[in-house]
Amino acid sequence: MNDQPTYELSINSQAASLFDVLSDIKDEIGCETQEIEGARILDAGVHTHGSVAAGLGLAGLCMGDLANIEIQPADPDRYATTNAVYVQTDHPLHACLGAQYAGWPVQSDDFFAMGSGPMRLARGREEMLGELELTETGSPVVGVLESDSLPTASAIKLIAEQCQVETSELRIAVAPTSTIAGSLQVVARSIETALHKLHELKFDVRTIISATGHAPLPPPAKPGDMASGIGRTNDAMLYGATVTLWVDADDEAIEAVASQVPSETSKDHGRPFKDVFKDYGYDFYKVDPMLFSPAVVMIHSLRTGRSWHHGKLYSDVLRQSFFG
Amino acid sequence: MNDQPTYELSINSQAASLFDVLSDIKDEIGCETQEIEGARILDAGVHTHGSVAAGLGLAGLCMGDLANIEIQPADPDRYATTNAVYVQTDHPLHACLGAQYAGWPVQSDDFFAMGSGPMRLARGREEMLGELELTETGSPVVGVLESDSLPTASAIKLIAEQCQVETSELRIAVAPTSTIAGSLQVVARSIETALHKLHELKFDVRTIISATGHAPLPPPAKPGDMASGIGRTNDAMLYGATVTLWVDADDEAIEAVASQVPSETSKDHGRPFKDVFKDYGYDFYKVDPMLFSPAVVMIHSLRTGRSWHHGKLYSDVLRQSFFG
Amino acid sequence: MNDQPTYELSINSQAASLFDVLSDIKDEIGCETQEIEGARILDAGVHTHGSVAAGLGLAGLCMGDLANIEIQPADPDRYATTNAVYVQTDHPLHACLGAQYAGWPVQSDDFFAMGSGPMRLARGREEMLGELELTETGSPVVGVLESDSLPTASAIKLIAEQCQVETSELRIAVAPTSTIAGSLQVVARSIETALHKLHELKFDVRTIISATGHAPLPPPAKPGDMASGIGRTNDAMLYGATVTLWVDADDEAIEAVASQVPSETSKDHGRPFKDVFKDYGYDFYKVDPMLFSPAVVMIHSLRTGRSWHHGKLYSDVLRQSFFG
Repeated sequence: MNDQPTYELSINSQAASLFDVLSDIKDEIGCETQEIEGARILDAGVHTHGSVAAGLGLAGLCMGDLANIEIQPADPDRYATTNAVYVQTDHPLHACLGAQYAGWPVQSDDFFAMGSGPMRLARGREEMLGELELTETGSPVVGVLESDSLPTASAIKLIAEQCQVETSELRIAVAPTSTIAGSLQVVARSIETALHKLHELKFDVRTIISATGHAPLPPPAKPGDMASGIGRTNDAMLYGATVTLWVDADDEAIEAVASQVPSETSKDHGRPFKDVFKDYGYDFYKVDPMLFSPAVVMIHSLRTGRSWHHGKLYSDVLRQSFFG
Repeated sequence: MNDQPTYELSINSQAASLFDVLSDIKDEIGCETQEIEGARILDAGVHTHGSVAAGLGLAGLCMGDLANIEIQPADPDRYATTNAVYVQTDHPLHACLGAQYAGWPVQSDDFFAMGSGPMRLARGREEMLGELELTETGSPVVGVLESDSLPTASAIKLIAEQCQVETSELRIAVAPTSTIAGSLQVVARSIETALHKLHELKFDVRTIISATGHAPLPPPAKPGDMASGIGRTNDAMLYGATVTLWVDADDEAIEAVASQVPSETSKDHGRPFKDVFKDYGYDFYKVDPMLFSPAVVMIHSLRTGRSWHHGKLYSDVLRQSFFG
Repeated sequence: MNDQPTYELSINSQAASLFDVLSDIKDEIGCETQEIEGARILDAGVHTHGSVAAGLGLAGLCMGDLANIEIQPADPDRYATTNAVYVQTDHPLHACLGAQYAGWPVQSDDFFAMGSGPMRLARGREEMLGELELTETGSPVVGVLESDSLPTASAIKLIAEQCQVETSELRIAVAPTSTIAGSLQVVARSIETALHKLHELKFDVRTIISATGHAPLPPPAKPGDMASGIGRTNDAMLYGATVTLWVDADDEAIEAVASQVPSETSKDHGRPFKDVFKDYGYDFYKVDPMLFSPAVVMIHSLRTGRSWHHGKLYSDVLRQSFFG
């Protein structure tokens, strides 16, 4: 049984409506718009400063507008920084794994970026999406690229082709990780990291009914310093994120995985991600995949009223990462 | 003098507009709609999972849409759980005692549920509503039922009759306390518990101009386990809620009651409500009525600038209640 | 280079739209409207109680509706009070120094009040506005007055004249500092105090791209007790505010000023503002101007990824101020 509610509405269409709103208020949110090969582009940080509001908008696009995403004050004694991002969704499967997960390495002859957002559902090629029977056809198609430059014509053509739409049906938002908007949209992924790890642990993530996630908003890294950019936003998750899941599953199924969700169960846990990354020669695929998860998880069973609470915040590592 | 602002707008009409919105987005918020005896029903947890968004919606219906209600991150060291519900209203009298208080035991031959929401104003039979001169006529009429099952035809007819409207004018939302939405709407009652106790203490609650309330969102109890469901949501109030009141009254009047507001002044305070309830043979009316109030109260006098701050959080009892 | 985004939209026009909304819902937010010399007046606390919602609205008017402003729960152990005001803007220069700063002492023959809001841009006479090249022409014109009484006819005529518009083009909101709305709109000025001090320190505030501010919401002072009213709201800033700035400037420029931003660097720091004020014979201009700034500042460089974190909260002084 798929416990998630069904939609009449296309997730890409819903994200496209949000894309239109963001484009309309581009001046207010420090963004620029343009067309590349007929595709509509929202630049939230490549040739512009972007903004907090643009970051919230990008996070919304990533999640198919199926979540409430807010910036919140944070206690620097606990989080090293003074703001946090709080996410709440009643559609965790579709919003996080269907749309938000950065599972598409968009690689053309002259462009590379990690791609996320509901365009992944239109492409439909990822193994995880197949396992979860997450797919969507139709247009328009909306995606988000983490990149220091705008997509090239060849990249746009590749995205359109793989999503089986005309380039004019594409809506693509772009921001470097080292910008305000780019860093914010990454740390809005707290719930997604928990769901992704649970899926890896063979837990049926379709039983997750609702979720909240909270993670510190790190200082944007130096432009061009990819290791710091990835490092800080990852550390915000690994050492600072708290995820809550309301789950309609048997206690045995939850018990089998709950304690393994927090990042502290990984052998690579305990120091800034930048250092781990460096020691593996900046090869992402050598990092223990079990590392990518929130610091703390709370799981509430809707069947038995039992809760699981594992992991803890690592304020010192956050401080090293954000100020080191 | 009644210090509360007056309304042209009917509270039931205002709640009815929110009911329409929630019905329109039922799929997005995990709800179902149907008609029973011509009355419109919003099911937020009986035959569906409901959602956090539905819980916020139900809380809004309970308060006649006269409040802002949010889910917030919470520190589990203090609140035992990772989320909280924050309520703010500039209409505490009407929103909380006029509408939200669960003062109507809806009892037909084949149905029982505690009823709340602005339908109580249309019924107008509660002693407290008479004392406070809170009443409202006209249609439509909106109510919320805490129940594990949908209202029966006889229950609907009884509600309509007592509210003096046709059944087709009724808008009734339903959720079990053991669901996400059901538990959320109960812990949105922090301000209401303070006002109700103040009224019991003979304080003129019409002098309360604005209010905020904050309480942890407990894990939903096991479906059907009424004692745990009531227990956890009550404990969220008794041991975890902080209520702030801005009051236009004399210092003497405030001083006479302020220290008695927190639940810790009750002889039944100090352990999970479920245990208290059990020791009284599950007879609600044997529990000390002074127990039902927030853990902490802050009262600001608008006349003298003086503030009263009483009570404290009991994190250990929250932990026992939510994880015991 | 001016790093701030440019607007097609007039800040006064934007504020005027918000003024219209607030006027439409005046009953719901405890306000009254009237005309004085043809100018539209929103009374949020002179002859009415006002409300939290009205305070958020006033704060929005002050900032030209270029910010998100929220009330939040606060930990009384840290903030002495149970609520706080959280402000986020991606237009800190225009919203805070262009509009919000209370830089206009509105003085007619029979009226005095500190004036803030975008009407200052239309007047264009303040030295700081000239230095920052902040100005705006056109109508309508929107302002906020901190005053225990409504503006007189002569005050309205003076404002219109100095803003070079007809009185009928004026939209003026008024609240005493000792009301809910009046105190709330003042403590929404946390970012503004940081920017103002940075400007005094000769830092180029046009490089500040985005900002957040957080400060406790003090209990409203006794009506008419100006020293306590100013004292508590100032103390909320000086001892309780945390401001975060995202800045596109050189490290040297930031380093030169960052440690001086917190109020603790002032010789007048350390006790409630009311006492400082009294010792200077209630002469505002004798107080060390370096005192007026937030307790804590976090500055993130968008150029180098470096952050500066200075200052700390002074919970004891907040307690003295709010409860003394």
